[in-house]
Amino acid sequence: MRAVEFLKKAGIVLCLDEKGKIEVADFGLGDLEHTGLQLLVYVNTDRYCAKELVLFPRQTCPEHRHPPVGEGNLGKMETFRCRWGEVYLYVPGERMENLHAKPPEGREKFYTASHEIELGPGEQYTIPPDTPHWCQSGPEGAVVSEFSSRSMDETDIFTDPGIKRITKIVDRSK
Amino acid sequence: MRAVEFLKKAGIVLCLDEKGKIEVADFGLGDLEHTGLQLLVYVNTDRYCAKELVLFPRQTCPEHRHPPVGEGNLGKMETFRCRWGEVYLYVPGERMENLHAKPPEGREKFYTASHEIELGPGEQYTIPPDTPHWCQSGPEGAVVSEFSSRSMDETDIFTDPGIKRITKIVDRSK
Repeated sequence: MRAVEFLKKAGIVLCLDEKGKIEVADFGLGDLEHTGLQLLVYVNTDRYCAKELVLFPRQTCPEHRHPPVGEGNLGKMETFRCRWGEVYLYVPGERMENLHAKPPEGREKFYTASHEIELGPGEQYTIPPDTPHWCQSGPEGAVVSEFSSRSMDETDIFTDPGIKRITKIVDRSK
Repeated sequence: MRAVEFLKKAGIVLCLDEKGKIEVADFGLGDLEHTGLQLLVYVNTDRYCAKELVLFPRQTCPEHRHPPVGEGNLGKMETFRCRWGEVYLYVPGERMENLHAKPPEGREKFYTASHEIELGPGEQYTIPPDTPHWCQSGPEGAVVSEFSSRSMDETDIFTDPGIKRITKIVDRSK
């Protein structure tokens, strides 16, 4: 499986059974090459979560936010740490020119955050709760560790109404 | 610095400024070779924490637990994921024979947990809150990612009364 190869390039060792647990999210758009994400959840408790994310070259994780859920929950807070490759992260803030990434064709209007944060290996950024964000990898793709509060993907709010829910495909090929 | 070399062996890339932020904990015993830990905190918010831990060959992180702190806090919960080398983790439970690790000489009585969990690269284990635990690396040392709820080291309770507090030395050599 291609995502395993990327994790290997990043020096990340998986157990045999984890290789079959890598999830593929196409976000219901059926255009995985442009809009999609591969991920391996290491742990997700009611307090914290850790995952590895794999982005194939120029693949985009579409704009979304993690809203407050229930009493006392502010929404998911997350830290992205690039392990391998390059990833461009977009958050609200000063609009920047000559961005490295372009939203997927035809869906540009669903990408509002345009303050760019460029992350190479060993660089990280923390996104506050309930903040719209999206990312795209560079020409080589990227492997990113995500450290966060509890992950509740089903509550994420996507800017693009064409994204109804996160479609997850567990790819057990190879 | 030796800890940086170990992280490199584990394929972990650091930013230049992170190399100077690696903490060395000798737990006040002044015997770092046997009882100690090197660590790099990536992020520690009031909700979650992520670190890399480096254990030199046969180095021991002494037995301790993370008690409840304040209202609604159960105590720190943590997941150890071995990235490189071997680490032997001890928690309460069925006593096992022929353990891989030995507590540091002269301090054996302060090591009560003897249920062994052996972790090699890609293997992980989650420790519930308020649970005594200790660990020792194998002959090569180990690099371990720690994912957890908020880290409040100053509230940790050590079994060994000789450990008064965590001594942290920021080693800026090289």
